[in-house]
This record gives sequence, structure tokens and C-alpha cells, in this order.
Amino acid sequence: MVKERMKIHVPGFLANGISAGIKHGEKKDLGLIYSTIPAKVAAVFTKNTFRAAPVLIDAERVKKGLAQAILTNSGCANAATGKEGYQDALYVSAALSKQLKIKEDHILLGSTGVIGTRLPVKKIEGGISKLVKGLHEFGIEAAEEAMMTTDKYPKISIRRGIVGARDITICGIAKGAGMIEPNMATLLTYVMTDALIDAKALNTVFHQAIDSTFNIISVDGCTSTNDTAIILANGLAGNNPLEKAQARLQRFRDMLSDVLMELAQAVVKDGEGATKFISIIVEGAKSRSDARRAAYSIANSTLVKTAFFGEDPNWGRIIAALGSSGIPLEKERISLAIGGLPVFSQDTPTVANLNKLKGIFQKNRIDINVHLGAGDKSYCVYTSDLSYDYVKINADYST
Amino acid sequence: MVKERMKIHVPGFLANGISAGIKHGEKKDLGLIYSTIPAKVAAVFTKNTFRAAPVLIDAERVKKGLAQAILTNSGCANAATGKEGYQDALYVSAALSKQLKIKEDHILLGSTGVIGTRLPVKKIEGGISKLVKGLHEFGIEAAEEAMMTTDKYPKISIRRGIVGARDITICGIAKGAGMIEPNMATLLTYVMTDALIDAKALNTVFHQAIDSTFNIISVDGCTSTNDTAIILANGLAGNNPLEKAQARLQRFRDMLSDVLMELAQAVVKDGEGATKFISIIVEGAKSRSDARRAAYSIANSTLVKTAFFGEDPNWGRIIAALGSSGIPLEKERISLAIGGLPVFSQDTPTVANLNKLKGIFQKNRIDINVHLGAGDKSYCVYTSDLSYDYVKINADYST
Repeated sequence: MVKERMKIHVPGFLANGISAGIKHGEKKDLGLIYSTIPAKVAAVFTKNTFRAAPVLIDAERVKKGLAQAILTNSGCANAATGKEGYQDALYVSAALSKQLKIKEDHILLGSTGVIGTRLPVKKIEGGISKLVKGLHEFGIEAAEEAMMTTDKYPKISIRRGIVGARDITICGIAKGAGMIEPNMATLLTYVMTDALIDAKALNTVFHQAIDSTFNIISVDGCTSTNDTAIILANGLAGNNPLEKAQARLQRFRDMLSDVLMELAQAVVKDGEGATKFISIIVEGAKSRSDARRAAYSIANSTLVKTAFFGEDPNWGRIIAALGSSGIPLEKERISLAIGGLPVFSQDTPTVANLNKLKGIFQKNRIDINVHLGAGDKSYCVYTSDLSYDYVKINADYST
Repeated sequence: MVKERMKIHVPGFLANGISAGIKHGEKKDLGLIYSTIPAKVAAVFTKNTFRAAPVLIDAERVKKGLAQAILTNSGCANAATGKEGYQDALYVSAALSKQLKIKEDHILLGSTGVIGTRLPVKKIEGGISKLVKGLHEFGIEAAEEAMMTTDKYPKISIRRGIVGARDITICGIAKGAGMIEPNMATLLTYVMTDALIDAKALNTVFHQAIDSTFNIISVDGCTSTNDTAIILANGLAGNNPLEKAQARLQRFRDMLSDVLMELAQAVVKDGEGATKFISIIVEGAKSRSDARRAAYSIANSTLVKTAFFGEDPNWGRIIAALGSSGIPLEKERISLAIGGLPVFSQDTPTVANLNKLKGIFQKNRIDINVHLGAGDKSYCVYTSDLSYDYVKINADYST
């Protein structure tokens, strides 16, 4: 157990997570990631119009290309809080800057929790000194725990490998559960690496890796005000620098994608109330955008999601959801398979054995394959079912 | 009670509903509406690509402008059933044509229930003789009952008034509950009238009336394969004919809109698992299409819907849903009120008393007013909340 914990460590990064009294009880609610030297930074943010205050601040600060710390609270999203919320975030950032003795511009912020309530700045300020004092090499798990809201378990992924003649580490943590719909991303995802990498290359590979991982998942089709994914690269591995169009950059991107995919899948598996992990693979589309729309039309159908929860092999709902996606479809050319079992093609049902299909619906992991017969573009979306617990968790969230 | 039932009657129309053994138990599952003479007809159908067989047949037949009967079954949608499903529908239509001794082209069909299963044609054929024999003046309620699926109560609306110097009647029936999202409409809506009206005028006012009623509701954002709204006008009232651009046509349209609005609202109130009736009014938009997108983005957010179910005054979710609608928004100009209480404006929360807001969330009927401050266009959508019962009903529907 101790050995396992020891593994979660990235050279040159310290972290910590504590309870600052933002949430009820003794739950951790304030986390910090800190690089001992300023690190290269890249980030992806939500496209929601009502970007939260920390997102607005981060979006400005990452433009300068360097960052050294990420402070995150749960229990309050500091979104839809206007100018006061913005000032609150700056206040907290100034307090941390003083304590860490680093430039305020090098501090990034993340918040998650209820939208529309003011940030408890005094509680956060009060916690910062303890938070900074407790920073340690193996504090990443505590930092991750501090940003959990309705997550049932922490989401951490780590990869080590030789890149550019040195051992490098990439470690990501994510907070997910609800309001999961790409555009971008998941709620909060932070990645730490000691790789030495060019700023532009970092930005490119991070966007690419997010696009093929966090941007293909959906739990409930709701895009949050706080979605933020940040990567910090402090270069302490001393590897041969990673630059554009190099084979070793490709190797780095693959490792990064592995980390992000593991986190993205964990977010879906731990989706609020989720009991199933569903892959929706749309192929044979005229364009990637068509494939995407078709896949999301199925992924976000509450009728499809409830059928999976109930293990009711009501495959017709998938066809109905596809048919309402708004993309041009030729009925005769479309085929649908669930768990490898062909259920519909040439506008005709092909389910020979409904019990066999029922058996597939009873599994925890289900693949839906749709072929549109219109081209060679494809898209894959990961989603979860819609259960009583989703309703329960969300009917009583803020109170 | 008997007196009340007596009222549901439209001159020249007979109807009936029986159990033909399609559904389990003794539940009515086969209904018929019959006009003693061929009637003018207009119709609106689903835009789902996978239109069910009865929809395909109706869409062809209504082009001729006359119809005399509508046969509807519940328990099977006859959708995603391909050529065989189409032949099944024709078989049933032929059987009814023989029994009623009317042209097959004058018969319209409706089906509702599980998608992707074959129509039990023999059961339906077996029921038709009994169905036709039992046709009577006061059979509309029985016909309505026969098309119910997860509806908790029948939906019937009737208006009488003097139009064109004669008493005319407009009576509508609707089947709703799930898969409710306009585009168009509700699952099945049939309107009978004895008004004498020009075919073109009928088509125009019916589309207008559907657009402002059934096309502004949503229960779960899912567009069905079977959505059909049909109006039959047999002209037996002998009124001065209703034609384009007449004041009396306007009067007729108002009566028709009243009937359809009553039905549309009943469909939302009886939405699967619904405990709340929520109006989302978006004003101050640059275009009607922007207003519509904003309204539906809120109406179809599962997080907004579950908050209402839980009576959790988590208004920030409405802002988050609005912010992810994809339309251009100027944050500073947007205001939000719930139940008349201002909660957000100029990018700042304005909720002084959260308990008062909580009280509003506890009501059965809730108005959400959004002002975008970008123009003078508006849109209103009616929707319901998302409850345990929605999940329960839909997790175990086909089995």
C-alpha cells in the first residue's frame, strides 16, 4: 500500500490537499500543486459563455507560457459571480503568492462546486498557510482528493518511460462525475510532467491529446462553466528537448494520451450514478462532424441511457435517437450492432435472439457500433447510463 | 358524469376503442375515428429519419386532401421494421377498408409503443370487426384510451362556438408521456371538426397552430419516429366556408389553438414521471432561432430538470445551461428571474433570500424568465422535471 503511494510522484513537483472548512465535515476541499521551478504551461478551457472567475484568470495567465502553482477548491465553483467573484479569485491568488513567494502571474486557479455562490475567501486564506507548509513529494493524491465533489473515487494516472534519452514521468489527476460534456473537456484535469519540452510543441500535443480523450466523453450532456485542463512541464528530467515534428515528441504525446484516456474513461465509469460504460462508435460517415453528431445524439438520449440502466434491450431507441440527429441519413445503408450482435440493417431488424441481446445489455461494458454507409469518417464517444442515483445525486446537490 | 361524457362528440364523427390483445391484460389498444363522409385532412409528421411505417403511408395519403378514418394501435410502434413493417401496415389498412367499405386511400394509420417489433397484424385484423361494429357518437374517449401508453390519464380537449354563422365543434385527443420533443410534435394528436373549411386554409392554420403549441413543448428531448398530428374537417356544420384571410378563419384558428394548447400542456403535465410544469420564456433575443436554442438548452438540461425535481434552488445550473447553448451571448446584458424573483443580472447573482427561491422551486408550476438584452425576439418552451419515475418508467419499458 505504502509502496503504491510512493509511486505517485513527479520529480520537481510538490502537492498537498487539506480541509479548509469550505465543505461540511472534515472533507478535503483545498488542494495545491507546486513546481519547484516555473514550468511551461498549456491549457484548454470550457466554451461555456459563463466561464467561472478562475477560468477567466487562468486563460489570461497561461498566455505568458509559464506557471508554477495550481490552487483548487471544491465546494464552490465561483461561477456566475461577476466582478465580485473575480476579485475573490484574485484575493486568494495574492494570498497564495505571498505564502509561496512566487509571482502572482504564475499561479493558476481552479474551483468546482455550486454555481452562483461567493467563494469563502477567508476560509481559503486561512487554509493556505497549512496547505503550503504541508507540501510534499507524495502529496498528489491529497491534492486530487481535495477537488472531488460527487466523485466516488480519486482519478490518478501515471506513466513513466524513456523519452529523449531520459526517464520522464507524466501524471494526471481529474475530477469528474457530473456536468460532463466535451466542449471542452472534463471539469478539472491537471497534468504534471518533468519532461523538457518546447512551449509550442506542448500546446499542440496537449490540445491533440485532449481532443481524442476528454473531448469524446459525455455523462449528461451538460457543459460546465469551470472545465479546465492544464499541463505543467518543468523540464527537470533533463531529456533532449522535445520539439515539433520529432519522433520523441510523438512518443511523449502517446504517453500523454494514455494518461488522459485513462482519466477520461475513469470519469465516465465514475459518472454520477453510472452503472455502465458505453462506447458509441459511429463509422462510415461522410464527415467527422456528421459522425460526431450521430454519436452524441445517441449518447445524450435519456431514453437510450435509461434503457441501458434498466438492461432493457430496447434497441429501437438507438435508431430513434440516430434518426433525430439532424444529419442526412440513408436508411437503407445504416447498420447497428450492439455488443457485436447485428440488430438492424437495410432498414430491417435483424435480432434473431432477444435473450442474447438482453445478455449484452446486462454487461457493465457495452459497445454500440453504427455504420452509416455514407463515407469513411468515424467518431467514438464514451458515455454512461442514466440511473436513479443520477437523479438522486442531482436533485439534492446544492442544499 | 354521464352528462360530461355526452359532451365529447363532434357531429358526423363516430369512434371506438377496444382491446385487441396487442398489450397485456384487458387494456384497450386499438382505436378508430371515423367520419361518416370523407373529410378534408391536414397533417404534420415527425422529422425523424426513421419514420414509422404508418407515418410513411399517412404522409402519402394526406397529399390527396381527403380522409375518412384513423386507425391507431398502441403496444407496437411499427417503426424500424422496414419493408415488412410497411406491408403489415398496408395489410391492416386493407382489412379496415373492407370492413368500413371505404376507399383504402381514405384510411390513415397511427401506431405507438415499442420500436423495432413487428405489428401483430392478425390480432389487429381480428379486432377490426368488433371495433367497427361498436362505432358510436360518444366513442372518442374510448378511441383516446386505446392509444395511451405510459400516459396516466386521457387527453381530450373540446371547444364549441359560432363560426361562419353556425355552431361548430373542434375536438382533439392526444397521446403523450415520453419521447416528447418538437420536430414535430407530440406522439399522436388527432383533431376532429365539423367546420366547413377550404383545404389550403385548413393546412395553413393547422401548421400554425401546431407550431405555437405542440412545437414548443419538451419532456425529454427525444424526437419520436411516430409523431403525427392529423386534423379531419367534415364540413357537416354547414357554416359559411372558411377561407384564406377571413376574420372567421382567424376565429377558427384561435379555437383550434386553444384545443391544441390544452392538449400540449396536458402532455407536459403528464410527462413521464413529471412532478412540475415549467415554462421557459426567453426574451430579448436577436432572432427567434437564438431564443429557441437558449430555451431548449435550458429545457433539456438534465441538471436543470433534476434540480427542479429535488426542489433544490440551484439556479446556477440554468445559467450554465444557457451558457452552453452555443448562441452568442453578452454576459453583462443577461438577466434571469425564477417565479418572478430576479436571481441574476449584469453577470452577478441577485438572490437576496434563498429561502424565498426555495419556496418557488417547491411550487408545481414554475416560470423561468430569461432576458438576453440582444434584441426583441422571444420564444417560450414548456417542459417538465426529471424524476426517479422517469428513470423507472423508461428503464423497463419494452420488457
